[in-house]
Amino acid sequence: MSSPSDSQPDKPALQLARQRITPYVHQTPVLTNQSINRMAGAQLYFKCENLQKVGAFKMRGAANAVFSLEEAERQKGVATHSSGNHAQALALAARQAGIPAYIVMPQNAPKVKVAAVKEYGAEVIFCQPTLQAREDTLEAVVERTGATFIHPYNDYRVIAGQATAAMELFEQIAEPLDILITPVGGGGLLSGSALAAHYFSPGTRVIAGEPAGADDAWQSLQAGKLIPQTGPNTVADGLRTSLGEKTFALIQEHVQEIIRVSEEEIIAAMRLIWERMKVIVEPSAAVPLATVLQSKEHWKGQHIGLIFTGGNVDLEQLPF
Amino acid sequence: MSSPSDSQPDKPALQLARQRITPYVHQTPVLTNQSINRMAGAQLYFKCENLQKVGAFKMRGAANAVFSLEEAERQKGVATHSSGNHAQALALAARQAGIPAYIVMPQNAPKVKVAAVKEYGAEVIFCQPTLQAREDTLEAVVERTGATFIHPYNDYRVIAGQATAAMELFEQIAEPLDILITPVGGGGLLSGSALAAHYFSPGTRVIAGEPAGADDAWQSLQAGKLIPQTGPNTVADGLRTSLGEKTFALIQEHVQEIIRVSEEEIIAAMRLIWERMKVIVEPSAAVPLATVLQSKEHWKGQHIGLIFTGGNVDLEQLPF
Repeated sequence: MSSPSDSQPDKPALQLARQRITPYVHQTPVLTNQSINRMAGAQLYFKCENLQKVGAFKMRGAANAVFSLEEAERQKGVATHSSGNHAQALALAARQAGIPAYIVMPQNAPKVKVAAVKEYGAEVIFCQPTLQAREDTLEAVVERTGATFIHPYNDYRVIAGQATAAMELFEQIAEPLDILITPVGGGGLLSGSALAAHYFSPGTRVIAGEPAGADDAWQSLQAGKLIPQTGPNTVADGLRTSLGEKTFALIQEHVQEIIRVSEEEIIAAMRLIWERMKVIVEPSAAVPLATVLQSKEHWKGQHIGLIFTGGNVDLEQLPF
Repeated sequence: MSSPSDSQPDKPALQLARQRITPYVHQTPVLTNQSINRMAGAQLYFKCENLQKVGAFKMRGAANAVFSLEEAERQKGVATHSSGNHAQALALAARQAGIPAYIVMPQNAPKVKVAAVKEYGAEVIFCQPTLQAREDTLEAVVERTGATFIHPYNDYRVIAGQATAAMELFEQIAEPLDILITPVGGGGLLSGSALAAHYFSPGTRVIAGEPAGADDAWQSLQAGKLIPQTGPNTVADGLRTSLGEKTFALIQEHVQEIIRVSEEEIIAAMRLIWERMKVIVEPSAAVPLATVLQSKEHWKGQHIGLIFTGGNVDLEQLPF
């Protein structure tokens, strides 16, 4: 059974996504930490998608997209352009499905990321490091192979897949969440989480943290129209992208608030997580905790879920 | 109800320990990793005691010891000498019980470790950095306060507490384990795990990994008598201690094999865990995986449990 890729996911679409991807993803643990709770003055629940396959929540959306394909589509495989976590996730999901994956990457992508994608059996196609070259190369690949393009976030199958992290979290903890905080980059996780709360935990307010140096989502929400990211400047490399029109529409409808955090706040939160919680998070994943710690009076006594989005960092290049 | 502190823990003692400490410890997650499984040629289950309270399995033994005390003993508190994870664990368990803790530490102990113990509300008593000074100072503290001395490992209440990590692991995974591997330092975790398997998973063979540079347990098992550690030389700072007579007797009875690993193997395993599994482990905690990767043909196709014993590392002083 295929998910409609052209309409916003409804409640059954989210339930189906969860059921569909269950064999292909980890049910990730939820951690709590008393000393960080004391610092925050609130009860925090950390959903560890950094411990997900490929080290990021992106595995959920990629798996839902791949396993939503019709049989005829499957045979021709999937394609995307990405040098980030989506590339690895799509490569692994395609391998799980036994279908080809074509990943367009800039020639100057870090060797370790190219190697990871190849290790999952995907074909890597290099291009010049410009947006135009990426799009042209992807188009040529799709034309040549007939593969289905899976966008990293502006795709309802991907959004429904990302929603499953919040769905799991709601079930894993005994008490209802007052608030759920995700980071926002392209908006796939934020819009999916907002849909998950809307359908499965309507008392939970979903908000986002965003680096002040890459605040297109905050600006777009203020302006009431999509404002593309220009010249993002943040250590949170997963959050430098712009919202898409599908994710923005969902965010406008379901998300009340986006809070901006500084680079110093992100790095301090990241270090705190490493030192106190003993898990490896990438800078983007520390943004929700940075958001909480920025204005503690805002959250006093609340039950707050936070998604650790990923753990892919270069140990030689830590920001602290 | 108190645990007998003078006889080897039997099955009810382990069950009671588990029940007793449940409110005071985390049920830690079990992680799996497909790429490490492929490298090992076996199915590995990692029990994440690095995500335990205070970042180490030591919390289990300390909690069982503290909550085993008779009311009259409780009021006078607990004492130990340690600058490692046991000190923090005992301090936190005492705070949970609302009783005093007295921790004897050498004057040159790292400031961060002293601060952590004080943060948990314990009283720190400094001494000269010699074994004699530590023992004399502890004796004086016990005499002055009437506190009960809780040894880091050579104590049946502590051993029963450490056993609960393996008890949990056996229940958390669907299939029975062929093998369970722990590191061995003082032997509290190893002897507790061996007892847990003996009573609750008799088909599981318990073995240990030990740094070749601190191989008193291997030597003792070979010689059939306790051979103290002299001049340990290993990055695995949690494993530099000697076995105690209580832990050695249990290990002699229940553990068939201790395997020695090199410093390079420990560091490589530690880095692999950080990079692939996205959790922070201290060098000691990487010893079981180093053991598996050292001789893969030994383990082919087996289901192997490994305990990640702790995650307390100085991020400024990583060995890689």
